Amino acid sequence: MDTLTIAGRDYSSRLLVGTGKYKDFDETRRAVEASGAEIVTVAIRRTNLGQDPSQPNLLDALPPSKYTYLPNTAGCYTADEAVRTLRLARELLDGHDLVKLEVLGDPKSLYPNVVETIRAAEILIKEGFKVMVYTSDDPIIAKQLEQMGCVAVMPLASLIGSGMGILNPWNLQIIINEARVPVIVDAGVGTASDAAIAMELGCAGVLMNTAIAGAQNPVLMASAMNKAVQAGREAYLAGRMPKKIYTASPSSPTSGVIGS
Amino acid sequence: MDTLTIAGRDYSSRLLVGTGKYKDFDETRRAVEASGAEIVTVAIRRTNLGQDPSQPNLLDALPPSKYTYLPNTAGCYTADEAVRTLRLARELLDGHDLVKLEVLGDPKSLYPNVVETIRAAEILIKEGFKVMVYTSDDPIIAKQLEQMGCVAVMPLASLIGSGMGILNPWNLQIIINEARVPVIVDAGVGTASDAAIAMELGCAGVLMNTAIAGAQNPVLMASAMNKAVQAGREAYLAGRMPKKIYTASPSSPTSGVIGS
Amino acid sequence: MDTLTIAGRDYSSRLLVGTGKYKDFDETRRAVEASGAEIVTVAIRRTNLGQDPSQPNLLDALPPSKYTYLPNTAGCYTADEAVRTLRLARELLDGHDLVKLEVLGDPKSLYPNVVETIRAAEILIKEGFKVMVYTSDDPIIAKQLEQMGCVAVMPLASLIGSGMGILNPWNLQIIINEARVPVIVDAGVGTASDAAIAMELGCAGVLMNTAIAGAQNPVLMASAMNKAVQAGREAYLAGRMPKKIYTASPSSPTSGVIGS
Amino acid sequence: MDTLTIAGRDYSSRLLVGTGKYKDFDETRRAVEASGAEIVTVAIRRTNLGQDPSQPNLLDALPPSKYTYLPNTAGCYTADEAVRTLRLARELLDGHDLVKLEVLGDPKSLYPNVVETIRAAEILIKEGFKVMVYTSDDPIIAKQLEQMGCVAVMPLASLIGSGMGILNPWNLQIIINEARVPVIVDAGVGTASDAAIAMELGCAGVLMNTAIAGAQNPVLMASAMNKAVQAGREAYLAGRMPKKIYTASPSSPTSGVIGS
Repeated sequence: MDTLTIAGRDYSSRLLVGTGKYKDFDETRRAVEASGAEIVTVAIRRTNLGQDPSQPNLLDALPPSKYTYLPNTAGCYTADEAVRTLRLARELLDGHDLVKLEVLGDPKSLYPNVVETIRAAEILIKEGFKVMVYTSDDPIIAKQLEQMGCVAVMPLASLIGSGMGILNPWNLQIIINEARVPVIVDAGVGTASDAAIAMELGCAGVLMNTAIAGAQNPVLMASAMNKAVQAGREAYLAGRMPKKIYTASPSSPTSGVIGS
Repeated sequence: MDTLTIAGRDYSSRLLVGTGKYKDFDETRRAVEASGAEIVTVAIRRTNLGQDPSQPNLLDALPPSKYTYLPNTAGCYTADEAVRTLRLARELLDGHDLVKLEVLGDPKSLYPNVVETIRAAEILIKEGFKVMVYTSDDPIIAKQLEQMGCVAVMPLASLIGSGMGILNPWNLQIIINEARVPVIVDAGVGTASDAAIAMELGCAGVLMNTAIAGAQNPVLMASAMNKAVQAGREAYLAGRMPKKIYTASPSSPTSGVIGS
Repeated sequence: MDTLTIAGRDYSSRLLVGTGKYKDFDETRRAVEASGAEIVTVAIRRTNLGQDPSQPNLLDALPPSKYTYLPNTAGCYTADEAVRTLRLARELLDGHDLVKLEVLGDPKSLYPNVVETIRAAEILIKEGFKVMVYTSDDPIIAKQLEQMGCVAVMPLASLIGSGMGILNPWNLQIIINEARVPVIVDAGVGTASDAAIAMELGCAGVLMNTAIAGAQNPVLMASAMNKAVQAGREAYLAGRMPKKIYTASPSSPTSGVIGS
Repeated sequence: MDTLTIAGRDYSSRLLVGTGKYKDFDETRRAVEASGAEIVTVAIRRTNLGQDPSQPNLLDALPPSKYTYLPNTAGCYTADEAVRTLRLARELLDGHDLVKLEVLGDPKSLYPNVVETIRAAEILIKEGFKVMVYTSDDPIIAKQLEQMGCVAVMPLASLIGSGMGILNPWNLQIIINEARVPVIVDAGVGTASDAAIAMELGCAGVLMNTAIAGAQNPVLMASAMNKAVQAGREAYLAGRMPKKIYTASPSSPTSGVIGS
């Protein structure tokens, strides 16, 4: 059985989804169901998990008995903010320790600040959190985060919310080749083929939010992403045909190239 | 219900597959089943459909009651050869008139000869064939073939058997925008994401052979392609999010660009 | 000495330029001078070469004693129109027989109609014209045009006036590999690097108009193109370093790939 | 006059070249001359600048009266090594303080270690060095290095010695848009068009070594690079035509996109 294992727990779906940017929690629920995701990430600072009892609670739409919650630090620009946010999440979620750390560099690009990210990861790991970490596609930083004890490394495909797809598959390939924890592409996926490409590169999973929530029909796009991640994974496992400039070529002149 | 309609008949699968290059007819059958394809294409000159009663017959592995056969003219380099081959197919298949025409330009590149293709299509249409036509990604030729009466136009993504994927999505986009018959990408798909991209561009379907038969695990790759075509179709119908250079951008500066 | 030979005559510049779309003939002259071009192409139907004696005459701005004129058939959609236009050009230019043939498929895409192009080339060659022929990037058509006797084959990089650059370098590469006459990229170049890439692929030259005339500073862009074509040619002759995924790689895993 | 200004000094050439990997110092000299470069970078740990009086001295081949020397820290994997190396360079070069800092992450990828790079830059700037800094294409790190006082920011195009060209023009574009010091692409350029593209993006200059030294004809490639950098700069200043999907389009649907 081909499963994704994170922090010792197995998941059959390799698609992780965000819960923000939907019309309402009902649309969130229907999209998450169509996506087949088992792990849902939640922006602790923007989502009602019971902080405001007068408002709808995401925990009702997506019961924690059914989904693994992954609290995240969206909107945090320093290590301190991120650490405080995740301590709050642990309280809100009764000691839950699997978290997604992201520390952003500036509000325009939303590119990660890797120096602050490393600082935050250090503190969180010491405090017993299991840290899945959003980062750039810098392979040296990715390795350092793994060696510090992060349970998954989550490089960007392109800027958060941009939908530009995988801008630099070569860096992702280096990260994947060197990693011993799951590598999950996080941010930048825009459509189904982007998710398939990530999986074909050998990613362990894909995390997305805007690509689904920002589609004209989010529920149908969630279904597309569900299939695309499976398709990409199966294609990776099946071992694709070699690329050839001419089919008549005796050997593959592009072997070794990404995707070949 | 989202169906592919060719020559007046509806199909629920948008993946068409070849039957050659497999280890044996049993592998062919298992791969075709995993692909979910309802239309299978057969190289008349290379496949035993009963011409040699002492050998295994493809019609036993893939019963015509279950699959729509699409005889093709693989290996033909002139209009005359192609026409003769399809007349033979009609005889072998009891008057079957849905065919795939391909006339190649040379044995090294296997690039189509569009001039001979037009000549052959003219003759075949006059003789009552329903012609699905393999062609280059030349939008003027594609339109001409449609106007002559071809029931589907099938431009290449890249060279036959190359697995190079979609080399020129812009030409495909023009063909799709202008066509009133189904546009089916034929040749060049190498892995699952290639098929998804074709569908996201708005193709009506994808036809492939080597991408499945040439994978290390053909049956698993067939399953990947089945899901990839569905994923790409659903993503196309769902309407993807706009691409943005920065998510903070007020509007999408890449709108109008392919894939945006 | 590295020269471009067309129809038996040597040129030291490998950049061919159009003369249309400038503010006035003075700007045309300054841009052509900055480009270093020796061959200038002229849309016979749109340019005053003396047909109207009351208007400025291009022959005064760019004296035929200094430049090789290449009358073209811009705006022609049938073989007959193109042939008539070039007969007229021969009269206007005192028996000049080097011409650029282009027959377009439709006014929206301006994509070539290769069937009509072949028809026109046949007639023109019989009538003693030396035909440089604009065509698609279809390698079979390109070979056929060469075999008919065209003195140069000029495939598009992308649509006329689009500035999209080289959309399918693979087809160009096949055309170049197989050709025995000069292959000159015509149409689609948008900026200097596009021209350099064309030359690095092994093209014998590049023809452009809008990329220069449509720049904000046409004369400076003409200078850029002059240098870019030389840079690309020298890089081609110098033999580039192999591409390597890692520099530490023992051998080049991408050898054989375009640009490697 | 369009000049490159670094640490208060003007240069007319925007091409900076390395001095390693040549057959001998004579080839180095001829290639540097053909490149037109005014700034040459030297791997202090690998190059004889007089440390060994019995061997040829680079200072004789490339006189410091004619070239600005840029000592670099090639082969350093920690901040401390890099700092020590540049202190040594300052001694060897009589108080010369313009340096190129690079701290690598591992010997396989040669990807920069940005955390150690920041540490080293801090020390060097305090000690009065003028630091041109090699870094990844991370825009947040690039901005931080600028704000610390580096006199030029030099992001990679792709891995050192790979010749893969510009893998992520989008990140480079962000760095360029936000920078107030010169942005010079360093590492990864493989051929002339790569250099032109870097300049068209708006880079202030390009630094390369292997692309020239590793060509089959290094001196001719140096000349190609000289012209390519000028071509790209002029194209940038000239303001390229807009990209259009169809030339007939009323407006440019790809405006805002890189290279449009």
